[in-house]
Amino acid sequence: MPAALLVHSGGPTPVINASLFGVVEQARQHPQITSLLGARFGLEGILNQDFADLFALPQDTLDQIAHTPSSALGSSRRDATEHDIENIFEILRAHDIRYVFYNGGNGSMGTANQLATVARTGSFDIEVVGIPKTIDNDIAITDHTPGFASTARFFARAVRDIGADNRALPGQVEFVEVLGRNAGWIVAATMLARHSPDDPPHLVYFPEERLRLDRLLSDIDRVYTRYGRCVVAVCEGQLDSHGQPFGADVRHGSRGSLAMNLGHRLAMLTAQHLGLKTRSEKPGLLGRSSSLAVENDWNEARLCGQAAVIAAMDGQGGNMITLVRDPGSDYGVTTGLVELERVAGVERLVPADWRMPNDISPDFRDYLQPLIGPVAPIPSL
Amino acid sequence: MPAALLVHSGGPTPVINASLFGVVEQARQHPQITSLLGARFGLEGILNQDFADLFALPQDTLDQIAHTPSSALGSSRRDATEHDIENIFEILRAHDIRYVFYNGGNGSMGTANQLATVARTGSFDIEVVGIPKTIDNDIAITDHTPGFASTARFFARAVRDIGADNRALPGQVEFVEVLGRNAGWIVAATMLARHSPDDPPHLVYFPEERLRLDRLLSDIDRVYTRYGRCVVAVCEGQLDSHGQPFGADVRHGSRGSLAMNLGHRLAMLTAQHLGLKTRSEKPGLLGRSSSLAVENDWNEARLCGQAAVIAAMDGQGGNMITLVRDPGSDYGVTTGLVELERVAGVERLVPADWRMPNDISPDFRDYLQPLIGPVAPIPSL
Repeated sequence: MPAALLVHSGGPTPVINASLFGVVEQARQHPQITSLLGARFGLEGILNQDFADLFALPQDTLDQIAHTPSSALGSSRRDATEHDIENIFEILRAHDIRYVFYNGGNGSMGTANQLATVARTGSFDIEVVGIPKTIDNDIAITDHTPGFASTARFFARAVRDIGADNRALPGQVEFVEVLGRNAGWIVAATMLARHSPDDPPHLVYFPEERLRLDRLLSDIDRVYTRYGRCVVAVCEGQLDSHGQPFGADVRHGSRGSLAMNLGHRLAMLTAQHLGLKTRSEKPGLLGRSSSLAVENDWNEARLCGQAAVIAAMDGQGGNMITLVRDPGSDYGVTTGLVELERVAGVERLVPADWRMPNDISPDFRDYLQPLIGPVAPIPSL
Repeated sequence: MPAALLVHSGGPTPVINASLFGVVEQARQHPQITSLLGARFGLEGILNQDFADLFALPQDTLDQIAHTPSSALGSSRRDATEHDIENIFEILRAHDIRYVFYNGGNGSMGTANQLATVARTGSFDIEVVGIPKTIDNDIAITDHTPGFASTARFFARAVRDIGADNRALPGQVEFVEVLGRNAGWIVAATMLARHSPDDPPHLVYFPEERLRLDRLLSDIDRVYTRYGRCVVAVCEGQLDSHGQPFGADVRHGSRGSLAMNLGHRLAMLTAQHLGLKTRSEKPGLLGRSSSLAVENDWNEARLCGQAAVIAAMDGQGGNMITLVRDPGSDYGVTTGLVELERVAGVERLVPADWRMPNDISPDFRDYLQPLIGPVAPIPSL
């Protein structure tokens, strides 16, 4: 009775449940898969043998879950030790699990690759297929990642909406802190809210580049002098010229240290140095848990789930599904495959030639626009 | 050529432009109003004689504005001095303005009352009518205020969505900082996301009551011990047992001092005292500028705009429009009138018998539910 296993790993996204939906509906088409288990809370769920029976879900429950954010299975940030991997293989064999679908980001693809490597070298008859997922859009090779577009649109709209408030009650500098530690994909997407120079974000910075405080302050001073207001989009992970988070409070974790209040800290520094009224907003995790998914993003997340099952059936274990953009100007995608080892732990940053001072290049705009769709300006009188 | 004037005052809301729409469409019905001016940036717009001609707006522009957040006219927090009031009356006479529609919160109704009082005592033939507007729901007499329901639903959904993320990746205490300085109407509304005891918000506090740090910590400890996770909804204006904002950074302004990072500060204190992993999110002004208006809220904001024009035509200057809830279980409202002096500067707090420890009373839930509508739980497996 060969079974399949779906695992969620890393931070949830607005559409990770769409990939679950895709895996379930596709797996049902294949008689080789007699049962489909979902690990509750990622790696922990495997190790604790805590599984949901995904074929047993009533269709209406599945339909409902498919359209809600966060991970319905639960996830985990735990890295797999050698000992964990050994235990996992015992558990996979005990449950006759032949297909493992590992849904995560570039770090999680490292774990998937560990599993695939052991399966291959140990001659286990187990196909491990990676399903890409991350709001950060920082997985290599794939055109983009499921989850990115929904979160990017959330922040583009947030900057637009907060900017409309800033325009209606001027005399203030507004920092909007955006998700993203090292890669500036999301903060760049807020630029889709800027249709004319006085639209927000007036200033945008890439975490790929260190930001000098004096440059930030002179940028703000210039914008404020011109418009009497200013909206700055900045990543939670932005570092200063010393490689430090501007004196923000830092939390140390398994993935390195994370500034907890970067936007607030910049607001305080700006008030102190320029004597301006400042504020900061931090929608934070709401941006990755928002119930407002982009339709294409949802469809593509589902497609990646389906493609993973098809790949496993074709004996293509050891690969991750990729999204491949159609050539030409009409947006469309197909799926492809990439060896897990080529994406495992590889963090894709925004290319240097797509980054411009307080702007994005035309090529970058062309890349982002079809993913995120229009972010219409808010009219004023 | 008698003219009318519309003024926006105080913070924007998701539906203040619906009131503008209501004023314009109603004013067009009355031949006595030959022109309708909109003050750009509130009181400043009057004093600078910077007016938009609202009758000249193309219908499609008006329709578009009606459904967008923020104030399309622009607003101001400026308080009127005696000198301002004198200048305003000169300007009103110069433009033959006979009707003034003042759209704002309880502080703005103070200015409206000043104008109405001078008009009456000085025998000016000018009708001043207040249109209620505030996300804070803290205006007296009216059942609720236009703007409240949309912002309250935003935060109820935000707590629900962030809570789903917290459930999927447990092991963390999440603070969601909610708009509201002194009145707990919005933070209370996040309780509509709690359908069972393990739903967020697990903890909710009213700014009407000081919060002892040791009580907060023991509440968190109890929830975290039970569920392995915890979501706390807390107002930006929450004070500790000393009447201080828990050591948060404070900005001093015309409306008193405001803590800038209350949620973050509580996250730091919790990490320090309980040794737990903590985070905080602060959607902040996004909650009052969100493009997701509640339909009823939009309709009622429009209705208040219409009613203000009708009241002015009836010679009912000196009043503010109120929303009066229909008796019985089917939700509906009509409009009423209240003397401006009865609402000017009066801050309506959440009544004590509606506040319960980490909960709201059944009566309060009955009050909130029809305004905000269902906040459906996010399913998990």
